[in-house]
Amino acid sequence: MSGEGDFIALMRALARDPAARGLMDDAAVVDLPAGPLVLTTDTIFEGVHYLPDDPPEDVAWKLAAVNLSDLAGKGAEPLGCLLNYGLSGDGAWDSAFARGLREVLGVYAMPLLGGDTVRMPDGAPRSLSLTALGRASATPPARGGARPGDVLYVTGPVGDAGAGLRLLQAGNTAPAELIAAYRRPHPRVAEGRVLGPLATAMMDISDGLLIDAQRMAAASGVAIRIDMVPISAALEAMDDAGLEVRLGAACAGDDYELLLALPQGLAPPAGVPLIRVGKVTEGAGLSLMLDGAPVPLPATLGYEH
Amino acid sequence: MSGEGDFIALMRALARDPAARGLMDDAAVVDLPAGPLVLTTDTIFEGVHYLPDDPPEDVAWKLAAVNLSDLAGKGAEPLGCLLNYGLSGDGAWDSAFARGLREVLGVYAMPLLGGDTVRMPDGAPRSLSLTALGRASATPPARGGARPGDVLYVTGPVGDAGAGLRLLQAGNTAPAELIAAYRRPHPRVAEGRVLGPLATAMMDISDGLLIDAQRMAAASGVAIRIDMVPISAALEAMDDAGLEVRLGAACAGDDYELLLALPQGLAPPAGVPLIRVGKVTEGAGLSLMLDGAPVPLPATLGYEH
Repeated sequence: MSGEGDFIALMRALARDPAARGLMDDAAVVDLPAGPLVLTTDTIFEGVHYLPDDPPEDVAWKLAAVNLSDLAGKGAEPLGCLLNYGLSGDGAWDSAFARGLREVLGVYAMPLLGGDTVRMPDGAPRSLSLTALGRASATPPARGGARPGDVLYVTGPVGDAGAGLRLLQAGNTAPAELIAAYRRPHPRVAEGRVLGPLATAMMDISDGLLIDAQRMAAASGVAIRIDMVPISAALEAMDDAGLEVRLGAACAGDDYELLLALPQGLAPPAGVPLIRVGKVTEGAGLSLMLDGAPVPLPATLGYEH
Repeated sequence: MSGEGDFIALMRALARDPAARGLMDDAAVVDLPAGPLVLTTDTIFEGVHYLPDDPPEDVAWKLAAVNLSDLAGKGAEPLGCLLNYGLSGDGAWDSAFARGLREVLGVYAMPLLGGDTVRMPDGAPRSLSLTALGRASATPPARGGARPGDVLYVTGPVGDAGAGLRLLQAGNTAPAELIAAYRRPHPRVAEGRVLGPLATAMMDISDGLLIDAQRMAAASGVAIRIDMVPISAALEAMDDAGLEVRLGAACAGDDYELLLALPQGLAPPAGVPLIRVGKVTEGAGLSLMLDGAPVPLPATLGYEH
């Protein structure tokens, strides 16, 4: 495989939705019912957002997953996506990317609706963007709705992806569970659809539990106290569950769990994994309490960009 | 201006629509009535789709205009757009780009709803993508609906942008009208909305009148005969209106006029500039007749990519 036509043929196989018009037209046309449409987009650059030797299948997975995670944060059902793809002339890379994209779009039932495939200048680092569309319930949750008294939850442990990245940077490829957490995150799309109508505030944790909780507090005009940092058995087995490890996990990015506030007294819905991590109170700012004692906030709360 | 925060502040000024949520959330949320949503996206690379010394204001204009032209081809009203922007560290360029974007989005009343701004690797050529959303009438026109007997129209003369590009490549910056046609095309959004419900087939002419007419014929399963190539007074003043000039204009890209088929006998709507350029017949393929005599098709009908 070498050219734009070959790559578009691979994409056409992913674009079976009638809205895609077989990628033969100038635009996709989606027939929508009335209601809120959720839109999100992410761009990744080779050498900035992923390593040049990362498997292209995983690059595709992650590009779609980060967008799906933004839909999950809005409790939205994926409707479709558009791909902006820079061809570098490396047909094997393109084919592998297409395989990974097929996989992730299949798992999350998000059809490819269109996009633009362009040849990059010689030697330019790859640039890839994906735009995802989703359909939310009547009032999709925002970051800014948390109220004093709400209870704060996450949908799973944090820090696995950060540990996976550190392992890769040190030349390790195991434990597989941590590597996979970094390379193939599983956005909480199904959970988000259940939780969206219940949560007063919700967002995905892309930059770290602490920094994202701080953002939720600021957007909501409330204070948030984190009093528990859940970590996985895999991370605990590698490092132990000491304070430093849990602090590191709370500041690590790329987890793509959901962070949400539920009204006090509301029973968490059955069938959705939820871990209570803190409390919303009157006031402003973030505070941290671990093992029952206040812990000073680290200088850097997460990934800032 | 130097950083991501500065650029996002400029973008925030363009994102006043409530759907953009002040660019403070992870996603835009658009509350839509039921009906067809039109989606299109284009990516441009420095050195491929524009010249490194092109004015950044014009680069922004053209990036939005090419997407607006795809909406125009579907007879759609612009609802909003998302921008994927690669920061290179050149604050003056970023500010000028933002000015041009503000201008074009203002002229076409298309709010910025969101996007992603990322720092590019050092020395990488700029990569910019824009995704536009539009609302079409019940049945947006496609390329593939032309029927034998239909009459073929364009919304304006062709070839000006191609002449402008040739002038720039030869180091000229006049005539201004031809340079502007290349750098600041005016997509036919208002015209498209009037024509969309009437046309049996419609598309924007981005790659050249002949190649796009050939694509319409192929998609519609009909033959198309072009018997007139309209050129502007500015192009005629520069070159004359000889056969070669008109043939060149018919194969030049970047015009962004609309090409459409209307049923025979339908009076073209008042107030929309329409020039009759040909006829749809039974059969297949494209033919060309100029000054009343058949003309062999050029080897290259337009810009192929």
